[in-house]
Amino acid sequence: MSPDPVRDSASSPSKIDLRSLFLGPKGENADVFERLLLEAFRDHVFWRRNFHPEDGFAVGEMERHTPAYERSLHVLSQELLGLLGELKAGIPFFSPRYVGHMNADLTMASLIGYFATMLYNPNNVATEASPVTTRMELEVAAQLAAMVGYDPELQWGHLTSGGTVANFEALWVARNVKYLPVALRWACEQAGCGDFRLRLASGERAAVGDLDLWQLLNAPCGSTLDAASRFCDEADDPAAAVAILGRNTLASLGYQEFGRRLTRSFGDSLPPAVILVPSTAHYSWEKIAHSLGVGGAQLVHVPVDSRFRMDTGALEEALRRLAAERRPVMACVAVLGTTEESAVDRLDRVAEVREGSRAELGLCFHLHADAAWGGYAISITRDADGSRRSYESALAASAPEAWPREGVYRALCAAELTDSITIDPHKLGWVPYPAGAILFRDRRVRELVSVEAPYLFHEGGSEWRNLGRFIFEGSKPGAAAAGVWMSHKVLPLHAEGYGRLVSVTCKAALALHRRLASGDWEPFVLRVLPTPDLNLVCFAVGHPDLRSLEQTNALVGAVYRRMSVSGDRTARQVEYFVTKTVLRAAEYGEAPLPIVEDLGFGRDDYRRAGGLGVIRCTVMNPFVGSPGDRLDFLEGFAKALQRVLGEALEEVLGRRVQRSSLLT
Amino acid sequence: MSPDPVRDSASSPSKIDLRSLFLGPKGENADVFERLLLEAFRDHVFWRRNFHPEDGFAVGEMERHTPAYERSLHVLSQELLGLLGELKAGIPFFSPRYVGHMNADLTMASLIGYFATMLYNPNNVATEASPVTTRMELEVAAQLAAMVGYDPELQWGHLTSGGTVANFEALWVARNVKYLPVALRWACEQAGCGDFRLRLASGERAAVGDLDLWQLLNAPCGSTLDAASRFCDEADDPAAAVAILGRNTLASLGYQEFGRRLTRSFGDSLPPAVILVPSTAHYSWEKIAHSLGVGGAQLVHVPVDSRFRMDTGALEEALRRLAAERRPVMACVAVLGTTEESAVDRLDRVAEVREGSRAELGLCFHLHADAAWGGYAISITRDADGSRRSYESALAASAPEAWPREGVYRALCAAELTDSITIDPHKLGWVPYPAGAILFRDRRVRELVSVEAPYLFHEGGSEWRNLGRFIFEGSKPGAAAAGVWMSHKVLPLHAEGYGRLVSVTCKAALALHRRLASGDWEPFVLRVLPTPDLNLVCFAVGHPDLRSLEQTNALVGAVYRRMSVSGDRTARQVEYFVTKTVLRAAEYGEAPLPIVEDLGFGRDDYRRAGGLGVIRCTVMNPFVGSPGDRLDFLEGFAKALQRVLGEALEEVLGRRVQRSSLLT
Repeated sequence: MSPDPVRDSASSPSKIDLRSLFLGPKGENADVFERLLLEAFRDHVFWRRNFHPEDGFAVGEMERHTPAYERSLHVLSQELLGLLGELKAGIPFFSPRYVGHMNADLTMASLIGYFATMLYNPNNVATEASPVTTRMELEVAAQLAAMVGYDPELQWGHLTSGGTVANFEALWVARNVKYLPVALRWACEQAGCGDFRLRLASGERAAVGDLDLWQLLNAPCGSTLDAASRFCDEADDPAAAVAILGRNTLASLGYQEFGRRLTRSFGDSLPPAVILVPSTAHYSWEKIAHSLGVGGAQLVHVPVDSRFRMDTGALEEALRRLAAERRPVMACVAVLGTTEESAVDRLDRVAEVREGSRAELGLCFHLHADAAWGGYAISITRDADGSRRSYESALAASAPEAWPREGVYRALCAAELTDSITIDPHKLGWVPYPAGAILFRDRRVRELVSVEAPYLFHEGGSEWRNLGRFIFEGSKPGAAAAGVWMSHKVLPLHAEGYGRLVSVTCKAALALHRRLASGDWEPFVLRVLPTPDLNLVCFAVGHPDLRSLEQTNALVGAVYRRMSVSGDRTARQVEYFVTKTVLRAAEYGEAPLPIVEDLGFGRDDYRRAGGLGVIRCTVMNPFVGSPGDRLDFLEGFAKALQRVLGEALEEVLGRRVQRSSLLT
Repeated sequence: MSPDPVRDSASSPSKIDLRSLFLGPKGENADVFERLLLEAFRDHVFWRRNFHPEDGFAVGEMERHTPAYERSLHVLSQELLGLLGELKAGIPFFSPRYVGHMNADLTMASLIGYFATMLYNPNNVATEASPVTTRMELEVAAQLAAMVGYDPELQWGHLTSGGTVANFEALWVARNVKYLPVALRWACEQAGCGDFRLRLASGERAAVGDLDLWQLLNAPCGSTLDAASRFCDEADDPAAAVAILGRNTLASLGYQEFGRRLTRSFGDSLPPAVILVPSTAHYSWEKIAHSLGVGGAQLVHVPVDSRFRMDTGALEEALRRLAAERRPVMACVAVLGTTEESAVDRLDRVAEVREGSRAELGLCFHLHADAAWGGYAISITRDADGSRRSYESALAASAPEAWPREGVYRALCAAELTDSITIDPHKLGWVPYPAGAILFRDRRVRELVSVEAPYLFHEGGSEWRNLGRFIFEGSKPGAAAAGVWMSHKVLPLHAEGYGRLVSVTCKAALALHRRLASGDWEPFVLRVLPTPDLNLVCFAVGHPDLRSLEQTNALVGAVYRRMSVSGDRTARQVEYFVTKTVLRAAEYGEAPLPIVEDLGFGRDDYRRAGGLGVIRCTVMNPFVGSPGDRLDFLEGFAKALQRVLGEALEEVLGRRVQRSSLLT
């Protein structure tokens, strides 16, 4: 094994010891956790007791010892014991033996911070219900935006219940920005200023009244926002201008009425606008396209290359085709860390393609990064002072492991070129749910999704009083913000903070990848997907006796069932935990073919089977790379897999296979 | 004061002692809380330690005492102390002195349940990541559905991050159901079965191919779902039928393409469909209409009566007008417990109006109850065995207070007539955020918003494995489900459980209402809104020296600032806490006029000022009605208000007012 990255801080006292961040696989830090937990709880109790002590007690000691009172408390104790019993059927995410879903141990800082804050019950919908934690929420969003590289003066970000709502908000904004130039034109007509000018994709400025629909729908996002601001600010009566513009937006009119007016104004309303996503995009993009009224059929899946990254050549082709068909592009989504493979789309190249399509095709669109998984990895590109690190120094810090690849590094740095980005603290931020985050480059987009709540937003005052006005959700836990805030305090968003924690898991994933790739699995055929960009390892398995890809996929299913809590199998009966997925032909196209062929099948088998089943290992537990004084994770995992393969084959073939031929 | 409802269990040992449920305003139950907290924490630690003990420890005791390790832990301790200091600037929701926003103390059961579960970090997106808590989530949703009165075999419900997402899902479903008959017709054309029959609003059955768009869009919801099921189930190839139907839905095509096809198929695509909401509806309905592509302008606000309940006569009129204009109605929303007044719309009458509009106008639509606030009040209509209680026994249980009014009781019972209902456990369930809930009468609607995630939904198996397929959000905290589950365990959803807790707060609100209405505030004029249906009290204040409604509204603002944490005022400087709101003319129409007139102003003043400012008191802290051995909440509140009125007037008039004329 390579030098232990989790432990290497022992020799360097200035470094954060990553093992001190977690409760630990055996509760190694239980003493510290318990002390701080009690501290937080008692501190809260005495806060209550010191608030108007003159009010006296609401329950006297004598009253607390009546039969009814005691009975109530006994019910509570009993039910809690019941709950604790039930919870033990949960999944041991804390264990290095768990490399299944995107779950692991959480930082003590976030857990204790969450609990301490939950006692205060703040609601981050408005500062009046959360004076402390709304500020913390905007602080952590600003920290993430600084890591990404957005201009701190212009950025706008906040927490969400998770990645789905974050991505949803990004597309909601993208949709509303796309159609804003049309609203602006109608507003100008109504306000009698049809000569109001807008900067086009070509850089020229033209009067909105002279533009056709295609030109309007291809105004650069920034230009649209500039024009809308000018329209309102320069009017004689700015409030009236805001109202006129508002009445003409898609948000206000709805798609049906907006569509009628498009036809009336422009004759042809053009084909529906599309959203470009890589074929590896998360399933929630379909929900988002459905619910926003964009339509699942308007999601254009761009093929991925053999590393499961968006094929930027294919993206260029798709844009050319769309431009020829005069289909407006609402947004293009690049994924930093796909859910199945942790692939990092070459965002640097995607941004180049976008620039090219603006210049050559006159096509402008919103660029969003879905970095729900990989967002925290951007921290490896930052020095402690916030400046950008060179690739060489990032690489040197990982030595002897050659991680990250240069393309991955460039893609992470290019996050600063997007219009919006989703980053989930409750994934590679190691904090409790619910904590997603959405960040926007230009804070003005908030106005396109904002509403007013009379009972919340009295003051006008400082903007952060009014969070609920600008976001999709209403009530949300201030405790979640405090959890993230605490975690960023102990582990800052740079290479020596979160960067080290993320790299430790990526390097452990590489070690697992190597062990699987170099193992002797005969007579089984084990094919690992290409070296992962971040920390997920997927592999397919076959066997010469399995004559079809369907049967081979069934083998993967049988392996998975033995390495997960499923059916009647409890956590105690599982040695190592994985999950599985299917690389479906409908989305993945040709990308899995090399693996299919290694398993002895062809394109037709793959199409007929509908896809390729693979075992999926998420390596996010920091102790996988440093699993304990007696557990050797890699060898243990390999031995368990070998055993399971034999049993799984028996199940699939429906007969007893000679053990000796299976266990080498 | 009337007999103490919080304490009355002392004499009846079979009743739950409500004071035992909370940590208490002075931390009276801190000993129990601390014991259970430690129990939960240690239980978890030993669960870890007992999982593969043979793996050894990942961190040795010696390693925990290196300088780097100790330094990391010191950072954590220090930062936690920092956080605890910050949190003390929070709002004392726990105190009976707080009657501002919808926040109060939470049940100990939910807080400890949440914390205990958070240590396990379950994610309720799929049972593989949460075998225990996904079951709990569906259990609590089923408990809520049983309380409402939905058929347990047919209902479908789950938790959400809050009321906004719950309402959003209801409307998402309503939108997709509304347009499903059109998709069905196109699917039938493509499958060559245009004679496929659908039951119409009139009860007749007709071939989908023969129907015009208006008839299709007015098929009853149940009939639409029946027809869609039959289309798929009776096809020779059900999977192909599902696919054909899916391809023709609004969700798949998106509004733009769907609209084009409507025009192509039917010539006229009819005006945009509308959503009917009372003028008191929560501001999030606008966000929902915006984001779903329905359009804010398609929200039709139905006026409310003088009790701030939806005027059902006006609803009938609106429906007649819409039918005459051939504008389809997507949904009608009734509110059980408005955010500003806790008004309960007469859902029983709304349901009658709906039935009438089907029979007389041929108009069918989805009926949704937004019971985010008032949902738990439905528990007062249930006996412990789940049967419906008579109104008389509900009234008798509240004696001598005459609560609830009969109309409110009928409206709560009528929740069973809706197609969907939003109920937020994190409001009158007294549990931590995030815990909203959406319940549907007919589980089949799930299919209209479902997607597939290859890495999650492997098994087919039992449906509750697949939660994430059918809901909007992805990752969400299993801990929230456990919090609700624990709270329902100690306080069941019937009249003797949650019903009692809710009534205690409603009765305290009535007492506050009486005290304010009967007080001698001269020379100020204090006008309380009509007796509340549930537990919010709003009042306006004026003074003879204030010559305009604008100035009078400014007085309300000045009172509010002195009775809330705002500006530089910290919690320690506030004696009693309220919030405020504006009953805006644009939404509220005539409803506030009687109060405006009592203040000495007229309709024109009200229109010019844009609305009426009122102080808003949410009485959800159970200790308001039983505030402690020395605090007298009602008298203390009245005295503080009197003092504040004087100061506020000085501020508004910008001069020193003779104290003697103010403090009677």
